[in-house]
Amino acid sequence: MIAEIISVGTELLLGQIANVDAQIISELIAPLGIDMYYHTTVGDNSERLRKVFRQSYERSDVIFTSGGLGPTMDDLTKETIASEMQLPMILDEKELVHLESLFTRRGGTMPQNNKKQAVFPQGSKIIPNPNGTAPGVIIEKGQKVIVILPGPPRELRPMMVETVIPYLQQKLGNQHYVIKSRVLKLCGIGESAAEEAIEDIIKEQTNPTIAPLAGSEVTFRITAKADNEETADEMIYSLEERVREKIGQYIYGINEDSLESVIGSILSDKSWTISLAESCTGGMVAARLTSIPGSSAYFERGYVCYSNQSKIELLGVDKDTIAAFGAVSTETAIQMARGARKMSHTNIGVSVTGIAGPDGGSPEKPVGYVCFGISTEDFEQTQIQYFSGTRASIRNRAAHHALRMVWNYLAGCRI
Amino acid sequence: MIAEIISVGTELLLGQIANVDAQIISELIAPLGIDMYYHTTVGDNSERLRKVFRQSYERSDVIFTSGGLGPTMDDLTKETIASEMQLPMILDEKELVHLESLFTRRGGTMPQNNKKQAVFPQGSKIIPNPNGTAPGVIIEKGQKVIVILPGPPRELRPMMVETVIPYLQQKLGNQHYVIKSRVLKLCGIGESAAEEAIEDIIKEQTNPTIAPLAGSEVTFRITAKADNEETADEMIYSLEERVREKIGQYIYGINEDSLESVIGSILSDKSWTISLAESCTGGMVAARLTSIPGSSAYFERGYVCYSNQSKIELLGVDKDTIAAFGAVSTETAIQMARGARKMSHTNIGVSVTGIAGPDGGSPEKPVGYVCFGISTEDFEQTQIQYFSGTRASIRNRAAHHALRMVWNYLAGCRI
Repeated sequence: MIAEIISVGTELLLGQIANVDAQIISELIAPLGIDMYYHTTVGDNSERLRKVFRQSYERSDVIFTSGGLGPTMDDLTKETIASEMQLPMILDEKELVHLESLFTRRGGTMPQNNKKQAVFPQGSKIIPNPNGTAPGVIIEKGQKVIVILPGPPRELRPMMVETVIPYLQQKLGNQHYVIKSRVLKLCGIGESAAEEAIEDIIKEQTNPTIAPLAGSEVTFRITAKADNEETADEMIYSLEERVREKIGQYIYGINEDSLESVIGSILSDKSWTISLAESCTGGMVAARLTSIPGSSAYFERGYVCYSNQSKIELLGVDKDTIAAFGAVSTETAIQMARGARKMSHTNIGVSVTGIAGPDGGSPEKPVGYVCFGISTEDFEQTQIQYFSGTRASIRNRAAHHALRMVWNYLAGCRI
Repeated sequence: MIAEIISVGTELLLGQIANVDAQIISELIAPLGIDMYYHTTVGDNSERLRKVFRQSYERSDVIFTSGGLGPTMDDLTKETIASEMQLPMILDEKELVHLESLFTRRGGTMPQNNKKQAVFPQGSKIIPNPNGTAPGVIIEKGQKVIVILPGPPRELRPMMVETVIPYLQQKLGNQHYVIKSRVLKLCGIGESAAEEAIEDIIKEQTNPTIAPLAGSEVTFRITAKADNEETADEMIYSLEERVREKIGQYIYGINEDSLESVIGSILSDKSWTISLAESCTGGMVAARLTSIPGSSAYFERGYVCYSNQSKIELLGVDKDTIAAFGAVSTETAIQMARGARKMSHTNIGVSVTGIAGPDGGSPEKPVGYVCFGISTEDFEQTQIQYFSGTRASIRNRAAHHALRMVWNYLAGCRI
């Protein structure tokens, strides 16, 4: 079964937004074993949309569209497809009542324009939209399926998950294969070094395959295609085992794991607590650690100490240390980490202090120079790292590195 | 001049990554006045790529491709296009030497596979890639231009900016029009209310146009098409003036402005300082405020007080207040804000305390219930907000709302 996506919206062609919808749809249908062959984006232009749809209708079994379901004159996806498929547009009274009630609930009356959101190609199956006024549509004609969805990702995703995926699963019945994948997340090794270490495995594989994923972290995705989930899982696990033999010590997690979730699990298991003293990362490490549900069990507090005064007052950093070595120094960093730990009575204290830029650098300590400290009752360590890039990327990398240090400590290894 | 983009990569069709490249290219060429009509994504499949390219070559003047320039067998963009355009592939000795030197500098030798990255369709203009091993290619044939770029956005973007855009500008000479746009950013008004307030203006406009932009904030984009920049600017400003007459008090910034950058400017102008006391946002507000270069001038410190103990110890919150009203209450919130301000001797103290979920809610204070406080020497205010969604979205909205409160206070108005 071959699928494709048509995204409708001039804002996509102007680069005002990224095509998140195409990614959401693709990611959700990949496990069903439906082959996605094309994504096409076209503007709010009936003629070009018509041409694109005609071509898709000829070559694919399932066509998804996103966008162009709004109340304005520019929104013409349903109308164009209906016209191309020679289906009359019918007002759905039930949907109209529902739509009007949405506006009433918000304390207004429905503008006349919105009425067109309750008009559908004849024979459509309506996809409820719990987060907006534009319902989606499924049209079946012969062996072809057309799925018409609104543009906003926060409307489209739940409609896919709640209605479209179950519909496709039922339609496919048992006559399909599955594609499963598993992502391995690494820390403490560079991408090229990791690739080199498992080069033989990468090269020999056709199914399952293993390939690095582009991104800010070093990650590999194992993908298997099989008749059923069990077989796919077995194929994945046997390949993963071989990968772990080579680079297992760097794998901190899988799939949705993040450094902060893995750190959280280890801290919870040990009933340990953590505190932070952040300067240049300005709360980013704290924000990541507290993004995990239940983090209040191990995250006691964080100090965002931007000024020297706050480092001295809150963390007990010696003002002579700052005067002699600077606020950005391993000497200050370790006092910050130790201070955070002691002041908050936690098991671990972690600190970050650095020069995020764009100003404030010097020949000895250029922009991107960041010092880290970790302090426990019986272990202390400092590190210096140089990060390149913008202020934002230096801060992101510094926050990530602080978490790496914590994971390395907790995992019993060192960077 | 009509353009389109062909993105090559099975990872896009599997939804493993979003098509960021198409957005980057589109956004960069829009100001040149080139009309982007289509984006197409196709997998690492020579036959389908060939079909797609043939169609693009027939209907467009400028074709951009991204992806498929790597060293592996799967990477076949250059080869497929060269074959379709009947151009022989030629080894560029100079590029080969450069490529080998890249590997030597990293302390390795170039794998044989990479040699294909120095082979180009005859007559190509090479686009240097400062951030990777795959150079890009410009092919001119008659009036057609083909621009072939590598997939990683951090390689593609600088290549577009440094080589492709200047090349296209020169090619276009003066025979083009410009498209300019300006984004108005609002705060303290909902999208539909804002749209309603300027409905007449939205409806009557064809050039310039004004349209809401989907996203987490309420934003409107004014877009003008004109013979030259000056005329486009004038058109934009005269429309903007009319919009400001209706909803000017809600416009906090334009284009790249963010709440944190605007707050930073106001604080700097007033020589005021700010401190934070965050519970459920866990440092996110601090991270946003400190994302602005030079924020150390006004951001003194932040307290991430997750535990009750830390609220009492660091901010001087009365433990009886927590016992009587709870850690998530306006009573605690205002003490947190006041405590942050007094302990850090800043002009403004701001607090956030809430229930981010997924657990910890109660009938009176459900997940998403968040209290805010702002304290200055002569002004204090608390607010309660209910946010829906996941833990991440509740935290994001709460952090955003805290900044809104600060902006509203600083801008001299109230939500």
